[in-house]
Amino acid sequence: MSHEVTPQLWTGDYYNEGSGKDGLFDKLKDECGVFGVYGHSDSASLSYYGLHALQHRGEESAGICVSDRSEFHYHRGMGLVKEVFDKDMMASLVGDIAIGHVRYSTSGDSKLTNAQPLVFKYRDGDLAVATNGNIVNAPQIRRELEQSGSIFQTTSDTEVIAHLIARSSKDLVEAAKDAFNRIVGGYAFLIMTNDKLLVASDPHGLRPLCMGMLGDAYVFASESCAFETIGAKLIRDIEPGELLILDEQGLREDRFEEKKHRKSLCAMEYVYFARPDSDMNGSNQHAARKRMGSRMALESFVDADIVTGVPDSSISAAIGYAEQTGIPYELGLIKNKYSGRTFIQPSQELREQGVKMKLSAVRRVVEGQRVVMIDDSIVRGTTSRRIVNLLREAGATEVHVRITSPPFKNPCFYGIDTPDRRELIASQMSIEEMCKEIHADSLAFLSPEGLITAIAGNNAEDKKGGLCLACFDNDYPTRTDFGGEEKFGCSC
Amino acid sequence: MSHEVTPQLWTGDYYNEGSGKDGLFDKLKDECGVFGVYGHSDSASLSYYGLHALQHRGEESAGICVSDRSEFHYHRGMGLVKEVFDKDMMASLVGDIAIGHVRYSTSGDSKLTNAQPLVFKYRDGDLAVATNGNIVNAPQIRRELEQSGSIFQTTSDTEVIAHLIARSSKDLVEAAKDAFNRIVGGYAFLIMTNDKLLVASDPHGLRPLCMGMLGDAYVFASESCAFETIGAKLIRDIEPGELLILDEQGLREDRFEEKKHRKSLCAMEYVYFARPDSDMNGSNQHAARKRMGSRMALESFVDADIVTGVPDSSISAAIGYAEQTGIPYELGLIKNKYSGRTFIQPSQELREQGVKMKLSAVRRVVEGQRVVMIDDSIVRGTTSRRIVNLLREAGATEVHVRITSPPFKNPCFYGIDTPDRRELIASQMSIEEMCKEIHADSLAFLSPEGLITAIAGNNAEDKKGGLCLACFDNDYPTRTDFGGEEKFGCSC
Amino acid sequence: MSHEVTPQLWTGDYYNEGSGKDGLFDKLKDECGVFGVYGHSDSASLSYYGLHALQHRGEESAGICVSDRSEFHYHRGMGLVKEVFDKDMMASLVGDIAIGHVRYSTSGDSKLTNAQPLVFKYRDGDLAVATNGNIVNAPQIRRELEQSGSIFQTTSDTEVIAHLIARSSKDLVEAAKDAFNRIVGGYAFLIMTNDKLLVASDPHGLRPLCMGMLGDAYVFASESCAFETIGAKLIRDIEPGELLILDEQGLREDRFEEKKHRKSLCAMEYVYFARPDSDMNGSNQHAARKRMGSRMALESFVDADIVTGVPDSSISAAIGYAEQTGIPYELGLIKNKYSGRTFIQPSQELREQGVKMKLSAVRRVVEGQRVVMIDDSIVRGTTSRRIVNLLREAGATEVHVRITSPPFKNPCFYGIDTPDRRELIASQMSIEEMCKEIHADSLAFLSPEGLITAIAGNNAEDKKGGLCLACFDNDYPTRTDFGGEEKFGCSC
Amino acid sequence: MSHEVTPQLWTGDYYNEGSGKDGLFDKLKDECGVFGVYGHSDSASLSYYGLHALQHRGEESAGICVSDRSEFHYHRGMGLVKEVFDKDMMASLVGDIAIGHVRYSTSGDSKLTNAQPLVFKYRDGDLAVATNGNIVNAPQIRRELEQSGSIFQTTSDTEVIAHLIARSSKDLVEAAKDAFNRIVGGYAFLIMTNDKLLVASDPHGLRPLCMGMLGDAYVFASESCAFETIGAKLIRDIEPGELLILDEQGLREDRFEEKKHRKSLCAMEYVYFARPDSDMNGSNQHAARKRMGSRMALESFVDADIVTGVPDSSISAAIGYAEQTGIPYELGLIKNKYSGRTFIQPSQELREQGVKMKLSAVRRVVEGQRVVMIDDSIVRGTTSRRIVNLLREAGATEVHVRITSPPFKNPCFYGIDTPDRRELIASQMSIEEMCKEIHADSLAFLSPEGLITAIAGNNAEDKKGGLCLACFDNDYPTRTDFGGEEKFGCSC
Repeated sequence: MSHEVTPQLWTGDYYNEGSGKDGLFDKLKDECGVFGVYGHSDSASLSYYGLHALQHRGEESAGICVSDRSEFHYHRGMGLVKEVFDKDMMASLVGDIAIGHVRYSTSGDSKLTNAQPLVFKYRDGDLAVATNGNIVNAPQIRRELEQSGSIFQTTSDTEVIAHLIARSSKDLVEAAKDAFNRIVGGYAFLIMTNDKLLVASDPHGLRPLCMGMLGDAYVFASESCAFETIGAKLIRDIEPGELLILDEQGLREDRFEEKKHRKSLCAMEYVYFARPDSDMNGSNQHAARKRMGSRMALESFVDADIVTGVPDSSISAAIGYAEQTGIPYELGLIKNKYSGRTFIQPSQELREQGVKMKLSAVRRVVEGQRVVMIDDSIVRGTTSRRIVNLLREAGATEVHVRITSPPFKNPCFYGIDTPDRRELIASQMSIEEMCKEIHADSLAFLSPEGLITAIAGNNAEDKKGGLCLACFDNDYPTRTDFGGEEKFGCSC
Repeated sequence: MSHEVTPQLWTGDYYNEGSGKDGLFDKLKDECGVFGVYGHSDSASLSYYGLHALQHRGEESAGICVSDRSEFHYHRGMGLVKEVFDKDMMASLVGDIAIGHVRYSTSGDSKLTNAQPLVFKYRDGDLAVATNGNIVNAPQIRRELEQSGSIFQTTSDTEVIAHLIARSSKDLVEAAKDAFNRIVGGYAFLIMTNDKLLVASDPHGLRPLCMGMLGDAYVFASESCAFETIGAKLIRDIEPGELLILDEQGLREDRFEEKKHRKSLCAMEYVYFARPDSDMNGSNQHAARKRMGSRMALESFVDADIVTGVPDSSISAAIGYAEQTGIPYELGLIKNKYSGRTFIQPSQELREQGVKMKLSAVRRVVEGQRVVMIDDSIVRGTTSRRIVNLLREAGATEVHVRITSPPFKNPCFYGIDTPDRRELIASQMSIEEMCKEIHADSLAFLSPEGLITAIAGNNAEDKKGGLCLACFDNDYPTRTDFGGEEKFGCSC
Repeated sequence: MSHEVTPQLWTGDYYNEGSGKDGLFDKLKDECGVFGVYGHSDSASLSYYGLHALQHRGEESAGICVSDRSEFHYHRGMGLVKEVFDKDMMASLVGDIAIGHVRYSTSGDSKLTNAQPLVFKYRDGDLAVATNGNIVNAPQIRRELEQSGSIFQTTSDTEVIAHLIARSSKDLVEAAKDAFNRIVGGYAFLIMTNDKLLVASDPHGLRPLCMGMLGDAYVFASESCAFETIGAKLIRDIEPGELLILDEQGLREDRFEEKKHRKSLCAMEYVYFARPDSDMNGSNQHAARKRMGSRMALESFVDADIVTGVPDSSISAAIGYAEQTGIPYELGLIKNKYSGRTFIQPSQELREQGVKMKLSAVRRVVEGQRVVMIDDSIVRGTTSRRIVNLLREAGATEVHVRITSPPFKNPCFYGIDTPDRRELIASQMSIEEMCKEIHADSLAFLSPEGLITAIAGNNAEDKKGGLCLACFDNDYPTRTDFGGEEKFGCSC
Repeated sequence: MSHEVTPQLWTGDYYNEGSGKDGLFDKLKDECGVFGVYGHSDSASLSYYGLHALQHRGEESAGICVSDRSEFHYHRGMGLVKEVFDKDMMASLVGDIAIGHVRYSTSGDSKLTNAQPLVFKYRDGDLAVATNGNIVNAPQIRRELEQSGSIFQTTSDTEVIAHLIARSSKDLVEAAKDAFNRIVGGYAFLIMTNDKLLVASDPHGLRPLCMGMLGDAYVFASESCAFETIGAKLIRDIEPGELLILDEQGLREDRFEEKKHRKSLCAMEYVYFARPDSDMNGSNQHAARKRMGSRMALESFVDADIVTGVPDSSISAAIGYAEQTGIPYELGLIKNKYSGRTFIQPSQELREQGVKMKLSAVRRVVEGQRVVMIDDSIVRGTTSRRIVNLLREAGATEVHVRITSPPFKNPCFYGIDTPDRRELIASQMSIEEMCKEIHADSLAFLSPEGLITAIAGNNAEDKKGGLCLACFDNDYPTRTDFGGEEKFGCSC
């Protein structure tokens, strides 16, 4: 393996000393975000603002590649969208087709070379690829390609698609269809050549991807919040197995797989990842989260003085819980919005004296109170234990933890960076044991039915509400056994 | 006048094209924040984390000056605390006394030279000063000092204090008392020499300043949220006219003014400035804001489908309004948390196409709904009009604006950057006219009594609840007529 | 084609307004420099100091890749060695095998993606490549590879080698031999795998490459000045067609081509490129340049008052001319050593008023004097004309130009960035015409025999002194007609 | 004392481990450089290019202050001119009067606050000051000013002048004259107000300062090389005791001291500091240095094989020595032109293995040779010893050191950063002892008469040739005993 060494942007998070690799903030990692434009002369600027709206899906690197119909112009860098691009750079990204990408951070593979869009030269010219998701059988395909002489420049599985297309003797669209039929996984793909844009969603629609219009131009994004930002109108979600082709003939709606699977959109997008103002499958995220909170209240009511949510993701659910129960919603926990990258860690000594920067409990609010603490999920349990402790140290007399999703027991193969099953506390302990482990007075999880109903309503077309719940129920929509090293992350 | 030219950190805010100087976000500016430590070997680190917690009070520049009892070590820079300091720099800030400062941004005087703490050499050694607030008669004093041969390096009025102290033939404490008796205004001052720390609040206690302890060390901050961050315990607020002296004899509680005025803490700290987890005068900010929302609901109820707050400052009040009325609180407006400095502005063309980055209305939430929009204040009216329009464009059928403070009619002389009276919409129009101007279906302001009750409760010691309400009721606690140029900003 | 957009490091050179693309400084571009280490635990640091000594061969980008025997660690960036690497980065480059590269600047292809060493993953693990030189038939091979499905990430021809090796079913050494036999050109190659280092020079030895030892470790560099810097001992030059293999068995001296061609080292290395303290083929560069100046004096003496050299490259030759003739050497021209990248260009108006930054004539020295101006070569003629004019404006009464190489008439196919033949002034004009064009009083070039003698002495083994003189005599050591686009630059 | 902590620009020089504070490069430090413009609309750009030409006089910080006749605009920063200023910044420096400054580096006081021009506000508006030199009695004056209530923001003595002017009740010109009459020392001063430029040289003319014209505009610079760069014409040197006033009436030539002292320009400007293309007192620096070399040859001839100079300062003298003796001038020592700031130091281990970066001996040139090594001065002796060793390690059989100035025995009080007398090797040892100490085969210094003749010719107006030779002959032109701490540096 080779490790690119990049300038240290992250000084890390001092909570990282925990048992799990992320310590207090062992939250599931944001995945990546993709954005595409076809037919707008300002495609680079639209991508810039669109990616900015998708920034929560990946803070590590950002990139935009533009085609002016004869050449590509691109730039990628480590950091936030606003840090990676400056005015001069934007001015040189000229063209009316664009794809862009924001990438989440992992400790091991944080490198510029992996920043997307990946850009290649092949037989027919230039080729750029941006993706969100994971290809389960990428290691196998990669090994085959290497055996027949391919060389790879990234550790990203995304490069596999480019090789499969380049090796085909068919035209681009047919080559792409063949490639998508070779790969197994959950993904949203944007592929650009000098004059075409291809847009694809995996056969189960595991990762979100939607289409919008801005005047006559087509835009594509992982979440609809990106459309609102640029003034575009949401048209529809990309369907499982769809392949859209945009070229001089306009939009062609095609499929790479005939058989139609039921849709299995990642439930964690609703629980945690997506921005609250995004719509997916016709549901608004904030509204769905409020319903999760309401439903939670019905399923696991507890008498208390205040309800508080772990910021930012569980605020909506906490308000739902408060509205349903009449227990007042209070700001018991607060997050410093200036934290994040480039922060100097406190010394061990200062940490022992109580220095904390990212999350604090508000003593005046919680002191002497029985607190319902709403959170979205428990991964390793370390985060939950520390937040419960923060509340207790600030004087809470009781802390009742309510999790707005079922126990997270199984790793994700479709793009969410999850630890090995043995590190997932819910796969190792009963709820009672977990309650004790996190020092809570009581602990409850939302039922799968409750989650489905909160997201999709009662009139959901199928009994799983169009969702993938594999991390909760172990029912994976695809094969996952390819005999290789298991990789539970995003290939993007 | 002289203008220092500094590297462009702010690319500005594209809403700035508005009539007022700040366009959509013509919010009152954050003031400055101060932080001090006496008697902790890690005083620089504590200052770093304390200032980080006070970052919302000033994003433009940051500085820390430390005394190791024989020498000062200091650094100041443009940007956020985490941008200004790095590890190597922190390592060289050695000493057990420290004062620190974060400064807010103004267009005209954005320069490194004005970054605090100001550091001087005088007869008795080194002198550093950090302040939050404004000295009303600083221009007059400055002119006198210049006439007798003083030279100034900053445009900050804070430098006046250093000259007054240096010119005195008395010892430091007496010189400082004389100086504070010369100046008129609202301020919180931290003054450090090689072996002493002086802490002072103006005779009316206009600006917040509190004391905490961390083990045996004393800490001081504009807001108590800074104590929570470093694990320190809030002891009390500094009283009007107090002068605390910390030296080898420990803490001495003195006064520079015998006469005790009633406390007149800036009401806008509760309405808008302070962090929701800070306590002032014994009230928690989030709780006070919720009470403002509840009281608003009682004073000016309107039938509607949803309540939404303008983020971030009005979320607490909106929840209070929703709880009181039973109208559900929804996320009708969302702010991009990655916005801010160093962002590239969209071109005029893209803006016309609807590109927006900082604040969006959530269509799915507001479409077809009657919306109660809670905001904290109206300054020029341009912001309110645009947010109302954002909601209407997203499909709101009615927009009812509720402002959780009385009409803002008078400029502040005590450190809040306000425009000239003629630009304050509430001093120029009736409420009906303002309602029309901002395109709202209805508009109401919280009554002064409502605000006082929400902040201080019914059992407030005096009828104004210990607050300065001059911006609402024109009753200024001090003389304001010093015949000079009126300056409505922070001298820090 | 695709263009990576990188942050603007070069604000360019204001002389660039000239007819040729480089204006006054239409000097031949520095080529690239390579450096390698085998068997030293501090291989990254040695590479850092070695590349620093080779910095004159490429100021645009720098990179180092290190193998710790199981993994690669690498970093590449735009800028000087000292700008690209910092301490933290160096600390993470752990391993005892290393290759490094500095790259010269061209306007069109200035991009990070092309920065070397190129790093790939292939069947047998990791592969890194660094080169100096040019592969004449690279476009053809590249097209063939693309036709059979290869994708390329760079525009660098160097990538071709990696594909050829990866596609072979033979072991690394045999695969490399096959690859070198496929390519035609002038090159010095360093190829690293997880546990091996391969070192190769083209069959004619066109580009310089030498071997040294530091204790038991082997080091390799484009020029021997890099050895002096790190305290290593120069052992010998790499011979034409040689392939050195370094692995756990130590050093193996092999060849990829049986037939031994006569050595044809680029004469321009002596005339212009190499650092004066480097030795090549047993000759010291400074000494060779002094001999060129002496010989020039014998071939084309002219009576004058002072001799001056165009800095920095022609100082040695000017001293030689002065010593031979007895005319005093004076500092008639001076170069500002702080110029270079990131400089702000003067406006057109200021240029007309005479602002110049890089090169000035010293009025006091040249006023009223007859000047012999020594330069190394004339490419387009624009530079020479401007320097002659600088001298005249400073009061020189006569300017006699003496060029220490023959007329440069033919483009280089072996790595030196030369313009098209039609832009080479010597291929378009007689010496008399050129003299008039550059406004000189007289103009003379060194004869080919003079150049050979100055470099190789009289006892040179062959009549060309082991040199390639194709740019002067059109006698190219290899085929150059591959029917593709002619590319006169460095593939590195 | 207070220490401003600035971002680490210098990683230092690894030779610094030596006995003296600067180790191998214990050269005398460059002093500062000043530049001024009156009456040119592009005054900031001219200052930029002028300071760039004076960069060798100070690499630590740079600053420009411009007056547009009503306001000042200024910027100062750490680093080279080209690093401190960017295009946007230059665009905002609007005005037709400007003063600029480059500052040399000292370890203790490297801070942004001391970067010049210093800018103040006083009774009559704005005041900016830039200086080169030292005020011998500044500590005394400073103490008096502090006693009467002045506060200082810098550790620079330059601030004293501003206070003296501000405290005066006279008009600017008279106040400045009084101020210059109070101070004792060697200095070149530029003082700017909103509409005036004052230019002054100390009563003995110790520091260089000259006037030029560019069209109708006046320009001022420490060295004339700055005029050549901007296309201006050198008019004359500023005379001892002169005070030039430039305002709306044009240029007024006045004096602040009636008595005319003989001129005593610092001899070290010729020996070491000034750029070779500068003229001072009518002599060109390169020419003077060549004459020093020639004279040296006559005074202390030694039979040898080659002559080499220590770059960059002694190249001219070495050529003079070679021309006079007929011994060939060779490149025995070479300096890496890319060295300097931001370089990573080799570890102790690598240093022991021989890694060196800044200066190397050229083995091929010196091996087996008897070498005459020309250097300009010996301060502590450590540098000379190491260079002699470099030559011996590279194979020199004999090393004869020739110093083109007399033994440096006495500290400078007029702006050159010299160590305490006890650290000056020439004041502690005989020439024979020094020769042994530096491991040379022979050592000779230029005689004072030789130096005077080389610089001023035989027809010098006075027997010291208009020079200050105090560091050689202990004859200081001013009082130096002010009972305070002796400070041997530049107050700028």
